[in-house]
Amino acid sequence: MNSPFLSMGQETYHVSLKNVFGQNRRKLCKALQQKPVSEGNLVVYLHGGPSETRFDSDHEPLFRQESYFWYLTGVKEPDCAIAIDVATQHATLFIPNLPASYATIMGRIKTREEWKEHYQVGEVLFTDDVEDTLAGMLEKRSNGTKSKLLLMKGLNSDSGKVYEPPVTIVNHEKLSSHVDVELLFPILAECRVFKTAAEQGVLQFVTEVTSFAHAYVMRNMKPGMMEYQGESLFRHYCYYNYGCRLVGYTPICGCGPDAAVLHYGHAGEPNARQSNVGDNCLFDMGAEYFGYGSDVTCSFPIDGVFNDRQRPIYQAVLNAQIAVYRMIKPGVSYVACHKAAEAAILKVLVEVGIVNLAGKTIDDLVEMRLGAVFMPHGLGHFIGIDTHDVGGYLAGHPERSELPGLKSLRTARILLENMTLTVEPGCYFIDHLLNEALAEGSFLKVHMNEAKVNHYRGFGGVRLEDVIVVTADGIINYTLCPRTIEEVESVMAGGKWPPTEDIAPE
Amino acid sequence: MNSPFLSMGQETYHVSLKNVFGQNRRKLCKALQQKPVSEGNLVVYLHGGPSETRFDSDHEPLFRQESYFWYLTGVKEPDCAIAIDVATQHATLFIPNLPASYATIMGRIKTREEWKEHYQVGEVLFTDDVEDTLAGMLEKRSNGTKSKLLLMKGLNSDSGKVYEPPVTIVNHEKLSSHVDVELLFPILAECRVFKTAAEQGVLQFVTEVTSFAHAYVMRNMKPGMMEYQGESLFRHYCYYNYGCRLVGYTPICGCGPDAAVLHYGHAGEPNARQSNVGDNCLFDMGAEYFGYGSDVTCSFPIDGVFNDRQRPIYQAVLNAQIAVYRMIKPGVSYVACHKAAEAAILKVLVEVGIVNLAGKTIDDLVEMRLGAVFMPHGLGHFIGIDTHDVGGYLAGHPERSELPGLKSLRTARILLENMTLTVEPGCYFIDHLLNEALAEGSFLKVHMNEAKVNHYRGFGGVRLEDVIVVTADGIINYTLCPRTIEEVESVMAGGKWPPTEDIAPE
Ligand SMILES: [Mn+2]
Ligand SMILES: [Mn+2]
Repeated sequence: MNSPFLSMGQETYHVSLKNVFGQNRRKLCKALQQKPVSEGNLVVYLHGGPSETRFDSDHEPLFRQESYFWYLTGVKEPDCAIAIDVATQHATLFIPNLPASYATIMGRIKTREEWKEHYQVGEVLFTDDVEDTLAGMLEKRSNGTKSKLLLMKGLNSDSGKVYEPPVTIVNHEKLSSHVDVELLFPILAECRVFKTAAEQGVLQFVTEVTSFAHAYVMRNMKPGMMEYQGESLFRHYCYYNYGCRLVGYTPICGCGPDAAVLHYGHAGEPNARQSNVGDNCLFDMGAEYFGYGSDVTCSFPIDGVFNDRQRPIYQAVLNAQIAVYRMIKPGVSYVACHKAAEAAILKVLVEVGIVNLAGKTIDDLVEMRLGAVFMPHGLGHFIGIDTHDVGGYLAGHPERSELPGLKSLRTARILLENMTLTVEPGCYFIDHLLNEALAEGSFLKVHMNEAKVNHYRGFGGVRLEDVIVVTADGIINYTLCPRTIEEVESVMAGGKWPPTEDIAPE
Repeated sequence: MNSPFLSMGQETYHVSLKNVFGQNRRKLCKALQQKPVSEGNLVVYLHGGPSETRFDSDHEPLFRQESYFWYLTGVKEPDCAIAIDVATQHATLFIPNLPASYATIMGRIKTREEWKEHYQVGEVLFTDDVEDTLAGMLEKRSNGTKSKLLLMKGLNSDSGKVYEPPVTIVNHEKLSSHVDVELLFPILAECRVFKTAAEQGVLQFVTEVTSFAHAYVMRNMKPGMMEYQGESLFRHYCYYNYGCRLVGYTPICGCGPDAAVLHYGHAGEPNARQSNVGDNCLFDMGAEYFGYGSDVTCSFPIDGVFNDRQRPIYQAVLNAQIAVYRMIKPGVSYVACHKAAEAAILKVLVEVGIVNLAGKTIDDLVEMRLGAVFMPHGLGHFIGIDTHDVGGYLAGHPERSELPGLKSLRTARILLENMTLTVEPGCYFIDHLLNEALAEGSFLKVHMNEAKVNHYRGFGGVRLEDVIVVTADGIINYTLCPRTIEEVESVMAGGKWPPTEDIAPE
């Protein structure tokens, strides 16, 4: 018999509760056990996400679990909580005690025994009992040294928001003296930076689905179609065929000038432009499967054949990916990778005359941060349960740069085995950035060929984004998209994908 | 030249800013002008929804505007606000003053003049100026009588949640003495109950799209398919073909026993069951287009042909719809419609022997609330910008019943012209409700044929849901789904939809 798993039926990928979430809990407990902090008990406690409605209405947005809680549980239902005894690794899941009327509206109420079996935890109790249970866990086996109740509190370096511990626990009379909000957050975030084999399996699966979906979209886009039709094709492919109900982030489907807007596709710019002959398209979309997401970008000419304006820019960005893949291995700085990508792009921009060396070397231009005019975002980011996964700037690791481009890097860390990241160099023609660089007094002006630059205004941009894992001596690229110019043109002409023979450089 | 409109390109339905949202503002102002409350100025002020991220992460869920603010503006962007001078109907839209860096990530920053032209408001200012502008509006033309600043505060009768006015305004030193939180809420909610011609146009459009999508799903479902594949087909059809990016609510795609779970399909029960030969399917899904949603349910046999167990239940529910459509016109109580639907269903349940009259009449059984065992929800609800649209239990209208079934009715109002509602009778076999009715001591027990009831356990249920508008002398049914048994079987056999000749009773 299979051990319990999450899936969208027998046919879709099986996410093992023990191998993914059970292993995540063990990893956290081991990391905490290595800290010589206390001889009393250590108890980890996290709230799951609450059920919510849209403003004052009864509209219930589809619930998606809070990511740290998901990491430790795989519990898809709202209004739960978990307590973990670090020494024994015993996990207690708390679930809401639902009224009988719930069954009519929401479905049969599962017993605590069923929850325990399904989610593979040590015990299941009702959330009414959280405080008393925690108090009991903190007393038990205490030998004179004070037990600690470890709660999450810390800064998310991508959002700038703080994870705040639950006030009802922090202020509870029986618990408050045990509360520690320092220890847990950095250790749990650090656990999430390195993916287990089981997590890597899910990320590989969801990236393959995402890759094939991109090929499907590419093959079906034609001039005159609306940008959002590409989004719809993508979502349908991933959900209908592989059970991926959610996407990791709002799909970005920019054609023509929209391709220069990095996070196009949001409510204010909802992928609602009609594509034109000659448009370059930039589609950044990733499926999510049971909490693990992908993040892949393809760029392609809407007509299926690269024109002379598109070809060098595309090749520049592809060269940047290749340069990065040649250098990544444990011990390499992600900042160095970012600069290598810029150098590869600038090299082509010099070749086609958009950028002038004017007596400098490519490396000089990189250090002058000229690359950030054309690629104002970071090379990539950790990826996992959040698209921009946590741990990019934890204490003890390199700090965020203040320089153009580099300040947008979501991590400056030294890469290590089992980190999963995106590699997403891009080259864009963004009016207000070009204008700044071309302005009188700009020290970059001498390196910009204004006539050539103007020839590319309105072009949009190219981004190529893969999901990779760092291995002991290099990388595995999970992404299986058409990548070379030949591959893209072949797929858009109706060619088979994946091909029998992979001619992509990685 | 067209007056400004919202659409997903030239090809999709045009939602006129003036005819929809401008007209909504005029209607509110007229309703407020009829109240002899003050000789000073009346100023209406509402916040739009804020931009948000998922918990502490930087994941941005796709923004969907708060419904009251949407009603008055049609503004799809977050972080805005509106002030309306009631006497002059002059509308001031407040927008965020975005930094230049916004353009790189989110797109070109539109000028205030562009916002004004696009959204057809009197003036556009930055949200930094809200307090001073309101203070100015409250002073202006004041003739000794105190001006009032009208803020929203009131109970949503579907969610039980309260719309709270913004504290920064309520407590502002220049504004607090003007604040009134009593007047606006009931009047604005009442405005939303009656749809203008332009609103009806959008609701009709989105219901037609929804109807054709249901027919498409029905035709493509086969035994062995997963429930969520129906959801995926529906979403893709509506988005790809008609630009409906959102659905009004999480699609409910229950096959077999799942069809008895009224709000199946949520995160805990994510439409992830495989359909089996012999399953009855209940698919409740509605597209949303620029804030106006539909809500339609179809029920059909997965094999395409009704079997002997399915046929009478389906016909009973269809009879209930027909009975209701025959009686609805201005002046009729929605409670009476609910009871008529129950009577039509009970009549068939008696005919097939599931229910025993045992000396009573159908009307007696209705008054005993036997119908609520088989249809525990209300007959329907107002529909518009919210799926369960507001105004169901405003003061001055009939109060909510406490009786089984009727207590779930989302309005007990007397129906009037230009109300838009769903009519969604259903008949379900829900174990815990059947068990209660069959229990020793239940006064309903004598009316339940236990053997016949047991024959239907696991069947799930049938619901048929249309969106209608009340006219001067009856209804218009916007829904264009296959409805008769012949129509459903024809479409599932590959027949054309809509047919050349409409043989549905309504
Ligand atoms: Mn990315
Ligand atoms: Mn409904």
